[in-house]
Amino acid sequence: MLSMKARKHTSEREMIAGIRKAARGAKDARVRLGIGDDCAILAVPRGHELLVTTDLSLEGRHFRRDWHPARSVGHRTLARGLSDLAAMGAEPLAAFLSLALPGEMAGSRWADEFLAGLLALAKSSGVTLAGGDTAESAGGVIADIVLTGSAPRGSALRRSGAKAGDLLYVTGALGGAAAELKMLPTSQRRDVGHPDFSQHPHLFPQPRLAVGAALRRRKIATACIDLSDGLSTDLMHICTESGCGALIEADALPVHASATLEQALHGGEDYELLFTARPSVRVPKIIAGVAITRIGMMTAGRLVRLVDARGKKMVLKAMGWEHFK
Amino acid sequence: MLSMKARKHTSEREMIAGIRKAARGAKDARVRLGIGDDCAILAVPRGHELLVTTDLSLEGRHFRRDWHPARSVGHRTLARGLSDLAAMGAEPLAAFLSLALPGEMAGSRWADEFLAGLLALAKSSGVTLAGGDTAESAGGVIADIVLTGSAPRGSALRRSGAKAGDLLYVTGALGGAAAELKMLPTSQRRDVGHPDFSQHPHLFPQPRLAVGAALRRRKIATACIDLSDGLSTDLMHICTESGCGALIEADALPVHASATLEQALHGGEDYELLFTARPSVRVPKIIAGVAITRIGMMTAGRLVRLVDARGKKMVLKAMGWEHFK
Repeated sequence: MLSMKARKHTSEREMIAGIRKAARGAKDARVRLGIGDDCAILAVPRGHELLVTTDLSLEGRHFRRDWHPARSVGHRTLARGLSDLAAMGAEPLAAFLSLALPGEMAGSRWADEFLAGLLALAKSSGVTLAGGDTAESAGGVIADIVLTGSAPRGSALRRSGAKAGDLLYVTGALGGAAAELKMLPTSQRRDVGHPDFSQHPHLFPQPRLAVGAALRRRKIATACIDLSDGLSTDLMHICTESGCGALIEADALPVHASATLEQALHGGEDYELLFTARPSVRVPKIIAGVAITRIGMMTAGRLVRLVDARGKKMVLKAMGWEHFK
Repeated sequence: MLSMKARKHTSEREMIAGIRKAARGAKDARVRLGIGDDCAILAVPRGHELLVTTDLSLEGRHFRRDWHPARSVGHRTLARGLSDLAAMGAEPLAAFLSLALPGEMAGSRWADEFLAGLLALAKSSGVTLAGGDTAESAGGVIADIVLTGSAPRGSALRRSGAKAGDLLYVTGALGGAAAELKMLPTSQRRDVGHPDFSQHPHLFPQPRLAVGAALRRRKIATACIDLSDGLSTDLMHICTESGCGALIEADALPVHASATLEQALHGGEDYELLFTARPSVRVPKIIAGVAITRIGMMTAGRLVRLVDARGKKMVLKAMGWEHFK
C-alpha cells in the first residue's frame, strides 16, 4: 500500500516535472511564479480586470482517441478556453491544466503529443502554462483547462450589449468543423504531424484572439460570443442575454467550402466569433487577416428567424450538433 | 441525434441555471461578472498579485460515494483549493467549478447536497462561485476546482524561503483525517447533516485561511505549505524548494486524539499549515483561534530526520498515505 503510494507519487512528480520542463518557454513578466508551489502568482496589468474561464474536455464526449490525434486533442483543449477569452476581447495571460490519465498512459507517447499540441498553441497565443493538477483516471482521459486573461477596466465584450437594429456579423467560415468531424471516422489520416492548420477546422481550430481584441479596442462590437455550440445555439445566448431577437439571411452566411447550410447553422466548434455592431459603425471587411461577414440583424421580440433568398422566413431553433455519442 | 443534443443541452442549461441560482449570495464588488458569459470578470485589489490554484477531485481516487456523504465531497472539493490559498497567505477571491456527472445523476439529490456542501464553505470563506463548466461523465463524478485569491505584491508565502536554523511549526493537530478515513468503511453515520465540523477532520477539514493570512501580514513565516499529502511528504517539498533539511521531534508533534504517530507523520489531508520562522521571531501559541506548535527545525543538508524522546535519530522518508484503492 505504501509502496503503491510511493510509486504513484513518483510517477505524478515525474509527470509534473515533465510538464514543468516542457512549459518552460519565453519568460513572461506577468507570471511571477509558475508550476511548483501551492499556487501560481500572476500580475494583472495595471488598470485591467481579470477574465477567467474553464472548459472540460472528456474522452468519449469531446474527443475520441480513435478519431482525434493526440496533438489535436491538446490543441483543442486549449483552443476552447482561448476562444472564450477571444469572445470577450481579452489579452491571454496564463493557462492551468488539470489532467487525469489512465495509469498506463502516464509518460506515454500519447501524453507527450497531447502536451506538444497544447503548448504549441500556447506559445503562438502568448500564454504561459503556469500550473494545474494531475491524477490517475479510472476511465479515459480527463482534461480541464483554465484560461486567465485581462482587459482594461469595463471594456470586455459581453453577450448582453446588443440592441434591436444592431447588425450581426461573423468571422471566417461556418460549418467546416462539423464537416471535418463527419469525415473523421473514415479518415485514414491519423498522424497529422504539423499540418496546414487552416485545412483542419475541426482538428485545429484557430481562436480569434486578435479579432476579439480589435473589436474591443476599436469599440466596434456591442455584444460578442464565440461559436462553440453552433450558430443557432450561440445566437440564442446573445438574444437571451441582450433581450432581443435576430434575423439571419441564409444567402449571406459564409458557409465553409466543405460544409452544408445545415452544418453552418447548427454545427458546433467552429470557434469563430459572432458579434453585433450599431448600424452607424463601419465594420472592416477584414480584421487581423480574418474575413468579417454581415449575416443579419438584431430585432425586437425574442425569436431567431432565418430568411431565404425568396424572402421566406422561418423560426430557427437552437439545435447545436451532438458531436458524437 | 438532434433531440439527444437538445435534451443534453436543456439538462446542462438547467444545471447551470441551478448552480447560478444557488451561487447567488452576498454581492462581492470584486466579482464584476459571474456565471453566464464566456468568462467571469474579476477585479484584483489594487497593489495585489493574483494567486491561482486548481485541484481535481475524482470519484474512486479522492472520494467514494459509498463512504463520503455528498455534502462532504462538496466541502472537500473546495477545501483543497482554499487550503492552497491559505498556504500562501492569500485572501480568497472567487472559485470556478468544472463538474461532470454520470447522466442519471444530473439534478439528483446527490448533486444538490454536493453543491450545498461546497457553497456553505464558500460562504463562510468569503468566496464567490463565479463560473465553471458542466458535462456528462461516462464514469463517475469528476470535479475540478479553481480558486483565485490575491495578496499584496511580493508578500505571498512560498515553499522556498526556509533556511537552516529556522524553526518549524504546524497548526492544529495531525493525523486526525487519516484516523477518520480509516473508520469510514465501517462507520454507520452516513448522513451527517450539519455536524460539529471539528469532529470530522477528514469529512470536513477546515482550511487555515485566517492563520495563513496572519503569517503573511505579520511577516512571521519564511516558508509555508499546506499538509495535503502528509507531513513527511510536504516537509520534503519545503526542503527541496528551500535547499535544506529538517529535524522533527517526535515528542513535540501535536498528534490528534484519535490518531497514531504514524498517521500524524504520513497521513494526508489534514489541511493544516506547516511553516518555518527565523529563531529570533516570536511566534504566538495561538493564531486566529488555532494552536501553533513548534515541532522541530530546519537543518543543513537535505535529509528529513526524526528524533525520538531518547535522542535516537532516524531518516524520515516521504510516504504520504494512499487514501484508498
